[in-house]
Amino acid sequence: MLKKYAVGIDIGGTTAKFGIVDRNGKILEQDRVPSNEHAVVEDFIDDMYAKLMPMIDKVGGIDNFVGIGMGAPNGNFYTGTIEYAPNLKWKGIIPIADLIEKKFNLISRLTNDANAAAVGEMMYGCTKNIKHFITITLGTGVGSGIVIDGKILLGHDGFAGELGHTIIRPGGRLHKSTGMRGSLESYASATGVRETAIEMLTAQPETESLLRNYRINELTSETVYDCAMQGDNIANRIFEFTGQILGESLANFVMFSSPEAIILFGGLTKAGNLLLNPTRKHMEANLLPIYQNKVKLLFSELKEADAAILGASALVWNL
Amino acid sequence: MLKKYAVGIDIGGTTAKFGIVDRNGKILEQDRVPSNEHAVVEDFIDDMYAKLMPMIDKVGGIDNFVGIGMGAPNGNFYTGTIEYAPNLKWKGIIPIADLIEKKFNLISRLTNDANAAAVGEMMYGCTKNIKHFITITLGTGVGSGIVIDGKILLGHDGFAGELGHTIIRPGGRLHKSTGMRGSLESYASATGVRETAIEMLTAQPETESLLRNYRINELTSETVYDCAMQGDNIANRIFEFTGQILGESLANFVMFSSPEAIILFGGLTKAGNLLLNPTRKHMEANLLPIYQNKVKLLFSELKEADAAILGASALVWNL
Repeated sequence: MLKKYAVGIDIGGTTAKFGIVDRNGKILEQDRVPSNEHAVVEDFIDDMYAKLMPMIDKVGGIDNFVGIGMGAPNGNFYTGTIEYAPNLKWKGIIPIADLIEKKFNLISRLTNDANAAAVGEMMYGCTKNIKHFITITLGTGVGSGIVIDGKILLGHDGFAGELGHTIIRPGGRLHKSTGMRGSLESYASATGVRETAIEMLTAQPETESLLRNYRINELTSETVYDCAMQGDNIANRIFEFTGQILGESLANFVMFSSPEAIILFGGLTKAGNLLLNPTRKHMEANLLPIYQNKVKLLFSELKEADAAILGASALVWNL
Repeated sequence: MLKKYAVGIDIGGTTAKFGIVDRNGKILEQDRVPSNEHAVVEDFIDDMYAKLMPMIDKVGGIDNFVGIGMGAPNGNFYTGTIEYAPNLKWKGIIPIADLIEKKFNLISRLTNDANAAAVGEMMYGCTKNIKHFITITLGTGVGSGIVIDGKILLGHDGFAGELGHTIIRPGGRLHKSTGMRGSLESYASATGVRETAIEMLTAQPETESLLRNYRINELTSETVYDCAMQGDNIANRIFEFTGQILGESLANFVMFSSPEAIILFGGLTKAGNLLLNPTRKHMEANLLPIYQNKVKLLFSELKEADAAILGASALVWNL
C-alpha cells in the first residue's frame, strides 16, 4: 500500500516546526517546540517526540509514513549530521538523522533549509516538471538550493550551494557575520536593503524622501517597499540597485549550471515587480547570447509559512 | 570482446585534429585536416574520412572501436549539434554527430572543447578517482568543464559551464568579443595578462621594468613570465593580480558546486607557482570556513598537445 504521509521538521535557531504532510503538499497537523532550550539534542528530540507521536497516531500510526525529512542550518545530506551550526545551541557534529530514526523507527533524511526549500518546490510547487533550477531565498539572509537533473546539488562534501556568499562586489560592503566583503547576501537580503537605504539617505542628504520620516531603526525592507509604492524616488532606486546586484549574480549562476528556471522565495519577494523587473533586466544584460531570454524567473508558489515544513517533508517521498 | 580504441576529434577554428586513443590515453595515430576551407560540413567530413579510415583499418578496423568523440566550440551534447559557433565557417545548426555516425557507422558524441577537457581529465588524467571537480582552461580565453557526481554538468539545454564569462569585476575591463565588462576571461587569460601588463606599465610610467624593453605587440603572457622569473616587480605583480581575480572567481565556483578539486590547464599554467600561489591565497580568503583548506588546486597531468584529442575520445568509452 502506498504510504500516505511524510513528516517535515524545520529546525531554526529558536524554534523547530514540524508537521504531517500528504503527497499533495497539504499540511494536516503541525506544531512546534523550542530549539534553544535543551542543552543536549536528545532532550530536544524527546520533547518533539512527545508532541509528534500523538499527531502521527491520529492519522493512523507510523505504518502510514514514508519517513521524516528535516531541514536545519548546516545540515549535511550525506552524513545526516548538523555540523558546527553557528546559530544552534548544540555544538560540534550532531548525528540528528540517526537519532531521529532510532527514536521514531522511521527513515530520516536531513539537508540544509535552503536545499529543503528547493526540494519542496519540486515536489509541491512551481518546478514539478523542471529538472534544472535554482531557488534563491531572499530573507534576512540569502539562501540557495540548486537542482541538477532533478537532484539537489550537494557537492563532494554535502555543502554545495551557498550562493548568498558568492562575491559580486569585490571589496564592497562588509558582511558582519562572515567578515567577507561584497557578497550577494550583504546586498540582496532584508538586511542588505536596509543598509542600502541608510547608505543612499546618508550619501544624498539634500534629496527629499519619505524614508526620512522613519527613525533609522524603523527602516526595513517593508518601509522601503511602502515608500516605493508611494512613488518615492530613493525607495525606488533602492530596489533598482538591489535588483541590479541580484540580477548580475543570477547571470553568473546561469552561466554555471544553465537552469531552466530560477525561483525567488522569501520576504523580499513581497516587493513583486519592484524587485523582479530590475533583476530580470540586469540578469539578461550580463548573460552570453546563448542564455538570453531562456531562463524563467519566477516567484515561489509555496506559502512562506508552510514552505520549510513542506521542503523538509519532500526529502523522503522518493527514497 | 572489450573494444580497444576510441577516436577523438577536436574541431577548432582553423584545424581539426583527430587521433586513435586506447583506454590508457595513449594516442596511437593522429593527423589533421583544415576546418576553415570547406563551405559545407559534408565536404569537411569526407576529407577527414579519407585520412581517418586508413588509420582505423591499420589498428584492425571499426569493430575494434567504441565510437567517435568530438569536441567543438558550441558543441551540444544533448543534440549532437554545433550551434552558431562564431569562429567556425559552418553557420547555423550543424548536426555533426549524426553526420559522423552515418559516415563512419560508429556511435558518435559531441560536446564543447572545455567539457571534453574535463572528461579527458577524468578518464586519463588527475581526476580518475574524483567525482566532483571543475577544470579551468587558461589559454587565449578561459574555458571550463564542471563535473558533478562523475558526470559533465550540461544544464537544461546543454550549455552549462561558461565560467570564463562570469562577471568578477562588475563594470570592469571590456571583453572585446562579448561586449561584457569584468568577466573572468578578460583578466585570467593570455589576452588578459597582456592587457594587465599594458595597463600597469601605462599607469606607472616612472616604475622601471624589464617589460619596457619589449615592443607593445611583443608583450605576451610568456614575456611577462620571463620577466617575472628575473625578479621584475611589475611582472610579478601582473601574476599576483591575475591570481587574485582567478582566486576570487574560484571561490565563487566552490561555493556553487563544492568540488573536491579544481584542475587548471592551458598555456597560462606554465607560470606555475607564480600563478598558483596568489590564486590559492585569494581563493581561500574568499571562502566560507566550511570550504576552506579542502579544495585541491591542481595542474592538469595531460600534455597540452594531446589533451583535446584525449578529451574528445573520452566521451565514448562509457556508452
